Amino acid sequence: MTELDRVFGTSEVDAVDAVIWALPSSVCREQAKRLAPHFRGHEVILHATKGLEEGTLKRMSQVLREEIPCPRIGVISGPNLAHEVARGEPAATVVASVFNEVVDAGMALLATDKFRVYSAQDVIGVEWAGTLKNVLAIAAGALDAMKLGWNARSMLITRGLAEMVRFGVAMGAKESTFLGLAGIGDLLATCSSPLSRNYRVGQRLAQGEKIDAILSSMGETAEGVRTTRTVWRYAQANRISMPITEAVHMLVDQGVSVQVMLHSLMTRPQVSELH
Amino acid sequence: MTELDRVFGTSEVDAVDAVIWALPSSVCREQAKRLAPHFRGHEVILHATKGLEEGTLKRMSQVLREEIPCPRIGVISGPNLAHEVARGEPAATVVASVFNEVVDAGMALLATDKFRVYSAQDVIGVEWAGTLKNVLAIAAGALDAMKLGWNARSMLITRGLAEMVRFGVAMGAKESTFLGLAGIGDLLATCSSPLSRNYRVGQRLAQGEKIDAILSSMGETAEGVRTTRTVWRYAQANRISMPITEAVHMLVDQGVSVQVMLHSLMTRPQVSELH
Repeated sequence: MTELDRVFGTSEVDAVDAVIWALPSSVCREQAKRLAPHFRGHEVILHATKGLEEGTLKRMSQVLREEIPCPRIGVISGPNLAHEVARGEPAATVVASVFNEVVDAGMALLATDKFRVYSAQDVIGVEWAGTLKNVLAIAAGALDAMKLGWNARSMLITRGLAEMVRFGVAMGAKESTFLGLAGIGDLLATCSSPLSRNYRVGQRLAQGEKIDAILSSMGETAEGVRTTRTVWRYAQANRISMPITEAVHMLVDQGVSVQVMLHSLMTRPQVSELH
Repeated sequence: MTELDRVFGTSEVDAVDAVIWALPSSVCREQAKRLAPHFRGHEVILHATKGLEEGTLKRMSQVLREEIPCPRIGVISGPNLAHEVARGEPAATVVASVFNEVVDAGMALLATDKFRVYSAQDVIGVEWAGTLKNVLAIAAGALDAMKLGWNARSMLITRGLAEMVRFGVAMGAKESTFLGLAGIGDLLATCSSPLSRNYRVGQRLAQGEKIDAILSSMGETAEGVRTTRTVWRYAQANRISMPITEAVHMLVDQGVSVQVMLHSLMTRPQVSELH
């Protein structure tokens, strides 16, 4: 058994041909460096890691590409809450790559009659959607803690999606990707799951806990907290309008209450829906 | 008090300047004919009616325009479940018109610190989104009756939205409207509300009741049942791919079970996310 077999549990007898890379973003580069010598170059890598490299705006496929000598990389993303998939409930996902053979490998490895796989090419959009949704998961947790209804939640998700589109497009993504399973699909599932760490961070912030206390009790960083800071800073510097992201930033890092944040969002100047 | 004051309850002393038209689609033309002589031509009409004219593909603004001598018509739509708005919970909506004065009137009449109003121009998109979402509300009710999780619901809404976009664009709508409050926003709220008649139709169909029994016990037609037939027929004739709409049609009119319908959707050929 090779080191790649050991890490990824894939099944070829003595050569791994396709790897599903699902390590956390925080260890992505370090593990990629460690495993790089075990790749031969012909392998297809499909990663399912959400988030950015800490301290940079680099997406996971960029990090992998920099460390591993395999050009054929793709990303898997969609509304795929793990416990539901494990129970055999129906779900769908997107495999995105500019290489057809990566998409084909993803379909061959993953598709079943309970798990539908759609193909796409916009790797940048799929990766940014999976990163940005974590900011909104914090907002959704905070809003739900206030026990407001479906109108408020639909407003949050819709206007949050508009921010994701603006930011994503500025980073080179295609708008239509955010209309799809890796965009609105994953956003919906994440914002609805109390199992999401980011959602729970939002809930606990709304209940008045401090971010440091929440994070230390959780034992590991909720991806969305880091992402909020990184994205907000970039959006500020580049004049991308992201009022919800800004509100989450104020909630997380400046201790502003959800009530104040919500009132400030509701009383902004009226605008066109297309910014 | 004029007849328009009496019907619409608006407030000018002797002249109604802006009308919020919220009569059901089934009586839209008949009421428009009846009230037409009371309009003087300068009035702004904002309608909030979801659905099509029965037996045609005409949108409500088309019907109003044909009967009433007021060119300045707009549409209001968004995730606005009435009981939540009445409780003073935050919500947002879209006012769409090609006339700026209609949009301004809508903002002046409706915007509060609990109700955000966004402007838009794509009347066709806003009207079709409000019509097509009712088909998916039936599907959401049926899916929820099977007690599946968030992955399945997110998949339904995302792939359903893709059908709405395909159909809407074929009717002259803009894709981006479906990304907004009248599109994904309203779709989310409607598919989450057990108060929606269309949602309840789906639930009861999934539990094995027949459509005739459901509709007669409800006393009035659920808009989505008619819309499903009209849209499915047009999509068939014009080769617009709408597998979920087709499945709802089979569930409603051919008594196919939800289980069979779901299996058939999950085992369709794998495709690109952008059709």
